[in-house]
Amino acid sequence: MHPQNRINLEEDEIPTQYYNIQADLREPLPPPLDPKTKQPVNPATLERIFAKELIRQEISSERYITIPDEVLRAYLEIGRPTPLVRATRLERFLKTPAKIFYKAEYLSPTGSHKPNTAIAQAYYNKKQGTERLATETGAGQWGSALALGSDMFGLKCKVYMVRVSYQQKPGRRVMMETYGAEVRPSPSEDTNFGRSLLAQDKNHPGTLGIAISEALEDTVTHENTRYCLGSVMNHVLTHQSIIGLEAKKQFESIDIQPDVIAGCIGGGSNFAGFAYPFLADKLHGKLDADFVACEPKAVPSTTRGTFTYDFGDTAEMTPLLKMYTIGHKYQSPPIHSGGLRYHGKAPSLSYLINKGHVHSVAYHQNEVFQAATTFAKTEGVIPAPETAHCIKYIIDQAIQCKKTGEEKVLAFNNCGHGLLDIKAYEDFLAGKLIDYEPLNIEVETYVK
Amino acid sequence: MHPQNRINLEEDEIPTQYYNIQADLREPLPPPLDPKTKQPVNPATLERIFAKELIRQEISSERYITIPDEVLRAYLEIGRPTPLVRATRLERFLKTPAKIFYKAEYLSPTGSHKPNTAIAQAYYNKKQGTERLATETGAGQWGSALALGSDMFGLKCKVYMVRVSYQQKPGRRVMMETYGAEVRPSPSEDTNFGRSLLAQDKNHPGTLGIAISEALEDTVTHENTRYCLGSVMNHVLTHQSIIGLEAKKQFESIDIQPDVIAGCIGGGSNFAGFAYPFLADKLHGKLDADFVACEPKAVPSTTRGTFTYDFGDTAEMTPLLKMYTIGHKYQSPPIHSGGLRYHGKAPSLSYLINKGHVHSVAYHQNEVFQAATTFAKTEGVIPAPETAHCIKYIIDQAIQCKKTGEEKVLAFNNCGHGLLDIKAYEDFLAGKLIDYEPLNIEVETYVK
Repeated sequence: MHPQNRINLEEDEIPTQYYNIQADLREPLPPPLDPKTKQPVNPATLERIFAKELIRQEISSERYITIPDEVLRAYLEIGRPTPLVRATRLERFLKTPAKIFYKAEYLSPTGSHKPNTAIAQAYYNKKQGTERLATETGAGQWGSALALGSDMFGLKCKVYMVRVSYQQKPGRRVMMETYGAEVRPSPSEDTNFGRSLLAQDKNHPGTLGIAISEALEDTVTHENTRYCLGSVMNHVLTHQSIIGLEAKKQFESIDIQPDVIAGCIGGGSNFAGFAYPFLADKLHGKLDADFVACEPKAVPSTTRGTFTYDFGDTAEMTPLLKMYTIGHKYQSPPIHSGGLRYHGKAPSLSYLINKGHVHSVAYHQNEVFQAATTFAKTEGVIPAPETAHCIKYIIDQAIQCKKTGEEKVLAFNNCGHGLLDIKAYEDFLAGKLIDYEPLNIEVETYVK
Repeated sequence: MHPQNRINLEEDEIPTQYYNIQADLREPLPPPLDPKTKQPVNPATLERIFAKELIRQEISSERYITIPDEVLRAYLEIGRPTPLVRATRLERFLKTPAKIFYKAEYLSPTGSHKPNTAIAQAYYNKKQGTERLATETGAGQWGSALALGSDMFGLKCKVYMVRVSYQQKPGRRVMMETYGAEVRPSPSEDTNFGRSLLAQDKNHPGTLGIAISEALEDTVTHENTRYCLGSVMNHVLTHQSIIGLEAKKQFESIDIQPDVIAGCIGGGSNFAGFAYPFLADKLHGKLDADFVACEPKAVPSTTRGTFTYDFGDTAEMTPLLKMYTIGHKYQSPPIHSGGLRYHGKAPSLSYLINKGHVHSVAYHQNEVFQAATTFAKTEGVIPAPETAHCIKYIIDQAIQCKKTGEEKVLAFNNCGHGLLDIKAYEDFLAGKLIDYEPLNIEVETYVK
């Protein structure tokens, strides 16, 4: 009998509470600071920007947060629980004694894990009477997820999409428009900030920082509009914990415990969503596993950055966050993993890396695409370039196990497919990918 | 309690035999004829082209054909059994008393049902010692499936891809190359036929008929190479029956019988694969359901074509097949449903339509994309333009049920996603889609 390929959960086995890692940290996370006063930001001042319940979750130290019925129903409607898949063909190809498992988050309608929090954020906003959501997006995974989430709860959605992606990558833009969202290239004519930049350069290519600024301006200048963010913040990571909570049930059902838990990190939400429920067991001495976060050498926030207070955006509009950062003015090279081109990392993840609970590694994009191609040829699924960073780590570990004979259980979050990133594969196959690495990284100090 | 969204089958519940409808027809299907002699083609002469076991299945009248263990394992490895999904959000949006179910074939790694037969064809070829497979592809769904199937069984794969698609639609081409297949724009420099066409016009855009001719020439001029076809032939439809056999088990598990079974038709394989196992019950008086095949008005093979003997390809290299056809020289308009731009339909399906067991309908592409957008906004999944033809029919039926109050069970095969066809959605949203319909159709008569 061959090993089982997919471990499914029935719909009535879906977890009904999120896990919030803030309950299990030895000390409270360093709070966001007002850049002028250097004092902790008052949650009440954030209510014009975010839904109240999301602010409450942001600072909550409750271990479990009940998932509302409406959100659970929406999760079921987009195909949750997702399968835990054993990569049997990859194992055979590598001739490894290791067992390789992945959580198939790429199976969501928009192709990534992002709807897990988009749906929750849309729901909490709808419940308090918000009529319209504003956000930014780079390559579009987050924007398409929020467009879907907004559509599911009858909210309008406006997405500021970095202009260069808007023009060069129509795939997820058209997806957002199909879901009924309004998408504008950023910088746009729709905000004062956008207009001021276009006045200087009408072909301004835009940056994620600029798009965030426009979405924030849009929010504060429109009644009944709130802002949503796709990663970094605690409430986002908490929503994503549905991934790891399901995976834990799935591993328990086959009586196996993972030895290695890996994920890629942009802002940190897919890694955290998958890993934190297992990490809870490690923090309580119930699981002895390695937790590995994988990032690009072109954007080495945790492997070469500094653990310090920095702005979350380029335009210095957000509070200061204590995190691993390579500086909010860092110009990320044009690697194909658009979702990993963020200068900082989630404060909770940064804290856990700093304390040694999570280990991080960095790769060049050519070796990453080599791993992605091996995965595609064996498992059939073409992974997102972002996801491929942790596939590279897992394959290296599996080869290591072949040398040592160890039968380790290796697990990773397969957080996105690469069907709308196919140009990156074309460039890789043609030998056109460039490996980038910054020579020097200088991070400013805002808080002593 | 909300209705269950997904009806799953466990891996050990996967059907272990294909269903062959030839066993249940009142008379044998009209045989393929040699165009010169007008006599039935001798199966032995086909052995230079096709694997022996596939020829045996082509003319078999066995009701069930055992699926080899290696093929079953490969099916499990690409995610079979696929879920049967209840479209609860679409039902709520339409306010219909109808229950709408779809089989999620779009979840395969290549995004369609095509791997079901690609895997089987690669396996039977590998078993008899074939080292290399040749085929043609239009937009690429079939080519990418055979590239994956070949890779899974260690065979080389050469795909002749219609030049205009090769240039304009890199998505599935890069997918094929990622799986290790060699892809050539057709007409190509690799065959005598291709070179002769390029000598006349070096920018020849190609047609599916030309690509078939090149793949056949490649096959007969290379030792240990065999040819594979993605639809139309009996053995292909038999392999696809895994879809309907799973769906029957899934409907039985919730004690529901479908009243309407629909699918789109290009060559006919996804419709047949889903519908024939249910049609078997209808032919035996055990199920009273409507079977509806949906095609484009631009290529109205079954709604305006003739049931007669015609060539399967444009270049007149294949035997004559008795089928509904609009003539093998018909120049299909450039609709976005590349998979439905075929002049004929599978002989078994054509026979069943002619006998009144299957009904067919035709739509324009704008109404089809309107339905696709409604589906995407409610179910989240962006369907392939081809698939959207039967979604249009199902939505119309659901609206009809709202008027009559009938609680019909409507089922269709969700045979492909549209993530690599996103340009079509962009054109639809921009109001750029043109509705085509031929004025007159003339079909030549080859056999009196």
